[in-house]
Amino acid sequence: MKTDFSWTIRVYYEDTDAGGVVFYANYLKFFERARTEWLRAMGVGQHALAADERVIFIVKSTSVDYLAPAQLDDTLRITVSVAKLGRASVSFTQEAWRMDGSGADRKMLARGDIEVVCVKGQARAPSGPADFRPTAIPASILNSIRNTIAQPAARSLQS
Amino acid sequence: MKTDFSWTIRVYYEDTDAGGVVFYANYLKFFERARTEWLRAMGVGQHALAADERVIFIVKSTSVDYLAPAQLDDTLRITVSVAKLGRASVSFTQEAWRMDGSGADRKMLARGDIEVVCVKGQARAPSGPADFRPTAIPASILNSIRNTIAQPAARSLQS
Amino acid sequence: MKTDFSWTIRVYYEDTDAGGVVFYANYLKFFERARTEWLRAMGVGQHALAADERVIFIVKSTSVDYLAPAQLDDTLRITVSVAKLGRASVSFTQEAWRMDGSGADRKMLARGDIEVVCVKGQARAPSGPADFRPTAIPASILNSIRNTIAQPAARSLQS
Amino acid sequence: MKTDFSWTIRVYYEDTDAGGVVFYANYLKFFERARTEWLRAMGVGQHALAADERVIFIVKSTSVDYLAPAQLDDTLRITVSVAKLGRASVSFTQEAWRMDGSGADRKMLARGDIEVVCVKGQARAPSGPADFRPTAIPASILNSIRNTIAQPAARSLQS
Repeated sequence: MKTDFSWTIRVYYEDTDAGGVVFYANYLKFFERARTEWLRAMGVGQHALAADERVIFIVKSTSVDYLAPAQLDDTLRITVSVAKLGRASVSFTQEAWRMDGSGADRKMLARGDIEVVCVKGQARAPSGPADFRPTAIPASILNSIRNTIAQPAARSLQS
Repeated sequence: MKTDFSWTIRVYYEDTDAGGVVFYANYLKFFERARTEWLRAMGVGQHALAADERVIFIVKSTSVDYLAPAQLDDTLRITVSVAKLGRASVSFTQEAWRMDGSGADRKMLARGDIEVVCVKGQARAPSGPADFRPTAIPASILNSIRNTIAQPAARSLQS
Repeated sequence: MKTDFSWTIRVYYEDTDAGGVVFYANYLKFFERARTEWLRAMGVGQHALAADERVIFIVKSTSVDYLAPAQLDDTLRITVSVAKLGRASVSFTQEAWRMDGSGADRKMLARGDIEVVCVKGQARAPSGPADFRPTAIPASILNSIRNTIAQPAARSLQS
Repeated sequence: MKTDFSWTIRVYYEDTDAGGVVFYANYLKFFERARTEWLRAMGVGQHALAADERVIFIVKSTSVDYLAPAQLDDTLRITVSVAKLGRASVSFTQEAWRMDGSGADRKMLARGDIEVVCVKGQARAPSGPADFRPTAIPASILNSIRNTIAQPAARSLQS
């Protein structure tokens, strides 16, 4: 079961730390940007999802290996693959690759397993603690994800 | 018109960038931490404020001069002074000082003017754009701020 | 004196705060991404600049007005205009605009004045405090900026 | 094998996202703050370490389960326990607990396994890619960690 999608990002000063390389926690941001664009490529916007369907996706667990450092101005390709699709959850395998000038992958920098859960309720209610009870992924989205998985050759790169 | 309050923070890797020093945008975070603790010292929690009074403070403008760099492991003292108190807004002057081992100020690293506005409405409503109309600062908070200003000698440093 | 360049960004969860909108400090990041891409469009990479010419650009002052909030999934256009070009410094005026579905500007969300200074030395030397003495902007870069200013019609939007 | 140390932090707006809760990636920052203070409590400053011994600790892998959300103004207790001590690496188990008004633990919010490696070289050299070859943890630090492990009752909480 595999989806292939990737998103290209640039490393800016904001992403680095005093070690001269990308701060490791920021790979979680990079991975999420790619998942967001993967959803958007299916026509799913998360802001609209919260407003219309009253569900949001939250991250339940993350497991990341940092293999090699990225530096300022590096171009990274972030991949998105669905490892497991449940009724209320999606498990992703994601990688960060440093690209060379020609756009080819040069080195894998990080690899992660991210589990996301669909939850219901008005998470942002200011009057009380968030609820976050798991709920079924809306059918239209579930179908879109299934369709993407069925077409392993589909690959999308922005620009 | 002057309030004197300060809050001590440490510089961690997360605060630095590949220049080896604190990323300039993070002084806005440091300034906000100090304003938050200044409010808390008056008994005002912003989460409770949003839940109970349905108002939140938002930042309307920031103007910061970066005078000298801070580095990993530096201890910074962040000051909070009320420059101007309006019906619905507060203007702060804030400074970031590097402290030496004895806790004395060694060098001013940044200085900023921050204007904050009290707004009403359920900012976090997922169903539509945030409203953010200015509204009067709740009377109890306004009085607390006035009292603090009247006691310029009051100075608080967390242990 | 005017340069016109703009860079498009998306708002992700990482950019927002519990107010449901983009955390104000992050506009400084958005502005820097646009300045970085403006430099790159002239063929200047900041990592190479530090390595080859031993100079880096640091931010000396920032002044930002926050006019309206941006939300999750918004598309923002960030502009870069040179307000003043000195021997060792550049002053920018930058704006953040929310775009609508057709790519047209819908609303100005933030506007800032950013002053950047060219400094010499090995800023990231681990053995001591950074130096950060102002130094002349390398001639080739100065010329590139001057050329860009002379062509006010030049406008670049990624993808 | 167990070390017990904990560090208390507050949740600020900067830590939250539009879901109304702490952005999950920020637990990695909280965990690092606690590890940094744990090292500092042994007399080890990481800036001095890089300058004097030319070694830095980098994060090799992180695995985090997010159990319950934290909100604005929450007080969190972050724990540090050494799970495994190698010649060039340390594996930590860390937890984030929400505290109630009396300072007692109320709920575990996140739990993580973090592996850190000691690397040599001048990581921040601007002239080339970082090196990051593993090297033995300096003997004095290794001994300090061993001593801490041997005293499982030692528990440190700031103020």
